[in-house]
Amino acid sequence: MAEQEFVVTPWEVRGEVDYGKLIRQFGVSPLTQELIDKIAAKAGYLHPFLKRGLFFAHRELDLWLKSYESGVNVVLYTGRGPSGKTHIGHLTPWMFTKYLQDAFNATLYFQLTDDEKFLIHPEHSLSEVESFAYDNLLDIIAIGFKPEKTKIFVNTGYAKTLYKIAIQVAKHVTVSTAKATFGFTDSSNIGILFFPAMQAAPCFLPQELEGKDTHVLIPCAIDQDPYWRIARDVAPKLGYRKPAGIFSRFIPGLGRGAKMSSSIPETSIFTDDKPEDIDRKIWNAFTGGQPTIKEQREKGGNPDICSVYQYYYYLFEFDDAKVKEIYENCRSGTLICGDCKRKLAEIVKKFMAEHQRKREKAKDLIDKYLIRD
Amino acid sequence: MAEQEFVVTPWEVRGEVDYGKLIRQFGVSPLTQELIDKIAAKAGYLHPFLKRGLFFAHRELDLWLKSYESGVNVVLYTGRGPSGKTHIGHLTPWMFTKYLQDAFNATLYFQLTDDEKFLIHPEHSLSEVESFAYDNLLDIIAIGFKPEKTKIFVNTGYAKTLYKIAIQVAKHVTVSTAKATFGFTDSSNIGILFFPAMQAAPCFLPQELEGKDTHVLIPCAIDQDPYWRIARDVAPKLGYRKPAGIFSRFIPGLGRGAKMSSSIPETSIFTDDKPEDIDRKIWNAFTGGQPTIKEQREKGGNPDICSVYQYYYYLFEFDDAKVKEIYENCRSGTLICGDCKRKLAEIVKKFMAEHQRKREKAKDLIDKYLIRD
Repeated sequence: MAEQEFVVTPWEVRGEVDYGKLIRQFGVSPLTQELIDKIAAKAGYLHPFLKRGLFFAHRELDLWLKSYESGVNVVLYTGRGPSGKTHIGHLTPWMFTKYLQDAFNATLYFQLTDDEKFLIHPEHSLSEVESFAYDNLLDIIAIGFKPEKTKIFVNTGYAKTLYKIAIQVAKHVTVSTAKATFGFTDSSNIGILFFPAMQAAPCFLPQELEGKDTHVLIPCAIDQDPYWRIARDVAPKLGYRKPAGIFSRFIPGLGRGAKMSSSIPETSIFTDDKPEDIDRKIWNAFTGGQPTIKEQREKGGNPDICSVYQYYYYLFEFDDAKVKEIYENCRSGTLICGDCKRKLAEIVKKFMAEHQRKREKAKDLIDKYLIRD
Repeated sequence: MAEQEFVVTPWEVRGEVDYGKLIRQFGVSPLTQELIDKIAAKAGYLHPFLKRGLFFAHRELDLWLKSYESGVNVVLYTGRGPSGKTHIGHLTPWMFTKYLQDAFNATLYFQLTDDEKFLIHPEHSLSEVESFAYDNLLDIIAIGFKPEKTKIFVNTGYAKTLYKIAIQVAKHVTVSTAKATFGFTDSSNIGILFFPAMQAAPCFLPQELEGKDTHVLIPCAIDQDPYWRIARDVAPKLGYRKPAGIFSRFIPGLGRGAKMSSSIPETSIFTDDKPEDIDRKIWNAFTGGQPTIKEQREKGGNPDICSVYQYYYYLFEFDDAKVKEIYENCRSGTLICGDCKRKLAEIVKKFMAEHQRKREKAKDLIDKYLIRD
């Protein structure tokens, strides 16, 4: 694979992602300042994830905002594939989803795809992925969504409702289309081939449940877009509006240039990590620093390739002046990696302690959020 | 297509079926006298459908009988694809299933595959097939199964339970296998490709619900065998016994040589047909008679190709002496078609009046039989 090549599918993100190229490949639209301003005006403040470009692309967000303005019922839909523990990379789109929920007072439908993770991973049993799902559920609840406007469901626990919608989607999706869209082959199992219909189903669930004209917006990472292409193709055939989307970049891991991934645990910060785990992982993070303090002082570091700097920039330091200071002090050699890492670790530990406190409380709140058949 | 060629799939039966050849093609076993005797001994009488060879083949019926003898929990599973009204061809395997239920005091699981019929027929809406399902349900209940030992379910109404089992089946079935087994192509929709897992699921449902070692026997028409090949392949991977099967020929229609089919309504007798419909359809039936009464008296008829004779033989005249008399009087020209048809019509009308009476009563019994999630 040449260095500039990259692959983005719902099950694999490989290579150095060129987001401009991805926008063209997927046929999505770049997020404009006008759209960002509209959301910020409605929310009362500009979310740092918008300011920093973590959310960078969309499909028909403009139409969704128009629907909102003209009084159409607008709702949000996002999800999680429970293949393991939750890490910071998972939390970020959910935090942004909460921002949108608050801004538009929108009902949120949240899908946990235990069926998908069972079907795609040969090594996982159904009971394993179900237990991941109910564990991940606590992290979702900890985000603080409005309980009266949030419906979380685990696919195997809500399959009666979902299957009925999914077969209506599936009837309009050929094997060819599923192969072309998701890279399935004749060696794929028939369950994972059907699964895109189960992930598309909640795009039409609000209309089924609420029985009124509804416009769905999906905030999620860009790798999920193939599902929405399917859902958007089928929507008019079922008499529904096409779901809109707002898409994020991938949250980098603490290694070199890759998406944060549960499969490389030492470069991911999980929501059950202890303070010493966070210290160790950040201490071992890939940076743009020089091999020695002496060289760092002389030549300066390179924040553009540094995972620690990316954490500040995208996730933990939203004061523009301060993040500029970090950047410049790194470049000039004033800031050395050890200090920079120690400071980030303190912020992350504080964030995680707070999340863990909310996660603990979430155990008593499950019934307020979870819907089942 | 040469005259001796025939096609048997779950969605199509075409040509003159050679059952001996079908036994070899499908890899099933012919029903032996020893097995027939064992069932008859247990039931207290020999069922005419066994005597006349309507049920003619099996898979591991011998092992299922051994399971019964050794005290293993034995259950029955059969089903119906609700693509329209019920006709006599549908009732016969259910009548035989009742005989087996009584003989072995076995719990019966009965699946109505509204999802399948929705997915396979471009013209059917989901609400149409659901209404067929609830209409067909009355015919099933009218058969007189033991209410305390019979669980009937409509797939979309029981999908939470079924989907969870179906994905465990589906994980072991590749797209290739589904194509080879059912004739699916890349133009098939992803719902129908997944569906075999939904039809296989009830093979493992009793074990899931009852939590004990169970041996399933499936009485059904031979065209359903591809599903059981899938279920039998997967069973050991899920830790269950392979389902056994006992298979029937197709019930002929009143036309020339074809299976009774809802798509040719004038050659099928439906459970809502009025007496005058039955008279007309039988009067217009294809026979082996001569063009004129005079010729019939002189040359005799050919009962071997006569749909009316087949109705007597397989479905309505189980006295061996009487059916032999019909055969010989036809051959000799003593019996003419008009009289033979009128007599059959009387028997069928009486049968149907009785079925319709039970069908009417069934409306009050739905809750005793139907299970939902």
